[in-house]
Amino acid sequence: MTMKRAYMDHNATTPLRPEARAAVLRALDAIGNPSSVHMEGRAVRALVEGARAEVAALVGARPAEVIFTSGGTEAARLAFHAAKAAQGVERLIVSAIEHDAVLASAEACGLPVEIAPVDQDGQIDLAALGDLLAASDKRTLVAVMLANNETGVVQPIAEVSRLAKSTGAVFLCDAVQAAGKIAVDVSALGADMLMLGGHKIGAPMGVGALVVREDLPFAALAVGGGQERRRRAGSENISGIAGFGAAARIAQAELQTFAQLARLRDRMEAQIAEIAPDAVFPGQNVDRLPNTSCVAAPGLDAETLLMALDLDGIAVSAGAACSSGKIGRPRVLEAMGVDPDLSSGAIRVSLGWSSEPADTDRFVQSWIRVYTRVCAKTDALVNVNVTAGRATSRLAAVES
Amino acid sequence: MTMKRAYMDHNATTPLRPEARAAVLRALDAIGNPSSVHMEGRAVRALVEGARAEVAALVGARPAEVIFTSGGTEAARLAFHAAKAAQGVERLIVSAIEHDAVLASAEACGLPVEIAPVDQDGQIDLAALGDLLAASDKRTLVAVMLANNETGVVQPIAEVSRLAKSTGAVFLCDAVQAAGKIAVDVSALGADMLMLGGHKIGAPMGVGALVVREDLPFAALAVGGGQERRRRAGSENISGIAGFGAAARIAQAELQTFAQLARLRDRMEAQIAEIAPDAVFPGQNVDRLPNTSCVAAPGLDAETLLMALDLDGIAVSAGAACSSGKIGRPRVLEAMGVDPDLSSGAIRVSLGWSSEPADTDRFVQSWIRVYTRVCAKTDALVNVNVTAGRATSRLAAVES
Repeated sequence: MTMKRAYMDHNATTPLRPEARAAVLRALDAIGNPSSVHMEGRAVRALVEGARAEVAALVGARPAEVIFTSGGTEAARLAFHAAKAAQGVERLIVSAIEHDAVLASAEACGLPVEIAPVDQDGQIDLAALGDLLAASDKRTLVAVMLANNETGVVQPIAEVSRLAKSTGAVFLCDAVQAAGKIAVDVSALGADMLMLGGHKIGAPMGVGALVVREDLPFAALAVGGGQERRRRAGSENISGIAGFGAAARIAQAELQTFAQLARLRDRMEAQIAEIAPDAVFPGQNVDRLPNTSCVAAPGLDAETLLMALDLDGIAVSAGAACSSGKIGRPRVLEAMGVDPDLSSGAIRVSLGWSSEPADTDRFVQSWIRVYTRVCAKTDALVNVNVTAGRATSRLAAVES
Repeated sequence: MTMKRAYMDHNATTPLRPEARAAVLRALDAIGNPSSVHMEGRAVRALVEGARAEVAALVGARPAEVIFTSGGTEAARLAFHAAKAAQGVERLIVSAIEHDAVLASAEACGLPVEIAPVDQDGQIDLAALGDLLAASDKRTLVAVMLANNETGVVQPIAEVSRLAKSTGAVFLCDAVQAAGKIAVDVSALGADMLMLGGHKIGAPMGVGALVVREDLPFAALAVGGGQERRRRAGSENISGIAGFGAAARIAQAELQTFAQLARLRDRMEAQIAEIAPDAVFPGQNVDRLPNTSCVAAPGLDAETLLMALDLDGIAVSAGAACSSGKIGRPRVLEAMGVDPDLSSGAIRVSLGWSSEPADTDRFVQSWIRVYTRVCAKTDALVNVNVTAGRATSRLAAVES
């Protein structure tokens, strides 16, 4: 069991970038509160502002537009809060495939929420969005993510924002999964507010940002101190922010390298398709993040499959990794109309900066083993060494 | 200028404890999201839960009662939100010397706020608190801090909570400054909710906790994922939490060592009093944190004094370090009725785990130089080498 594991869950969290690690260490060893006026405080303040410029550069924003938060979830809650409290928003339209943090924050802010559907490729239905926008004169916030966390499908955001703007709506874009994986430019996207998460791009967990167009009215949720230009009170996560800045810098510099992960991903999908002709890869027909593959085949069970792969030394996931160990309904695939028999066995393979061909080779080998056994209805005991988790549960079922 | 600086602003933020640094590094190198079900995820989950037990132990709570947040400010906002949304609270009573994060969060939550005064020693006026409580039948939340950040004055919390409980009020205690400096036991304090901040006890900045009595209804502010038992969504600040746990463990183990800082602090105050007979130390007559001294003398100006001390290599502060470089009105001293001529020159000296006698010696020497010059009305140019900042501003005043 000393074989190196194959970590292919980069959309859940990607390992810390070495450059980010170095920046974190420098920040950890700095002494002082950035709000203090003494030399120590000013030095730490400089670390924060340097990182702010780096994060801003990743998305083509101005540094003053970057509000550091504790992560994407806080950024979502803050965006909806500001929309209601300061931007005159009275209704919300969010796409059906938004992250739970966006859906739940929309619901929590107390405004009516309408859901914009997606098509079978997982892209937002622009006509339906237009109809929703036209149905009311109330000032609206539209929230559509740039790329989906489960399928990697990239949304036609420029069109979405053009539609939204044409009705005077505020446009919020969740770029947590997209940033650092594809080029992101807040102006080109037409986003009034944009969410970022540090740990998806190689920063430590616990830091993120909400980018807010400079002339957009805003209201803080965390209040007290004057940090973040009074838009987010609380002593800053200095080391996390420093790591976020460094990760943003390196992610931007390596966007072309990251793009090449698509070849590895596509090879993996081709290998699977060759042996499993009934396998499907939801979102495969449209523009996707280069690192993400959603793999499904009839008759599989995601939870059992994850356990088998985990025992084989492979870390992947089913859907978003945000529900404390629970594997929920594949909401995104359901929204795409994927057959339940397929979606219930769908898993997400997400590559990253540390991925190598050996990882996907191992995944394909292990996935095929489970697939073959399920398809052939082979007794689980035959493969007990490969899929001990599944075999055990089957044994238990037999014994009980 | 290569002389080691004397950092005496530990109440703003204290340097990272070496034990916390080691724990942070271990966590940074762990790969995985604690919400993932694979081996990597479970290993990181174990780090979080280990730290939760350590933080709980610092304040005599059960691990399940600890909700990790991004810091004290978020904990405050969350506490008031839960009070209003889930605990049936309809009015708030907060002491006049609460931290800005508590005062602002109280105001932001939209319930009526009443202020409980303190006496000239900086301790809450229990009779006045009783009158406020008796004045309404509405369910009330009382918020009183355990120890004040500016004076170090420890509040009679057991009495406060007894009073609050006798009327059925919910009691919130801000223990951000007290934890790790004196013994804190959530049961002995009678606190229903208790706020903690990591970086005040030697963890990295950007992590804190709200401790909530297990049977108290609660409502989350950050929503989406199921983290923190659905009481605070968002991917956890793993490295910060790990550091918080380690810092809590070492702070608790070294409480007796920390208590000895009072000797250093008291020696410092005696040295100052000997040369500056009109110096006062607000809060000196009552129980204080062992590390904190508020130093005031007539005729001084805090901003100028801080600049002079900073140039002498000494980092101290005036009030809380949470207002982005601004030195505001000394609200806490005003609430204590300290004369404006005294409070406008008051500074806070706060020692910590890395403090040594040489630090306070340097502080006394430097403070006395400024004090002597101001008292003697000596021309600033004479001491230009010592207090360049002040001398410059005086010169500017002369020239303009």
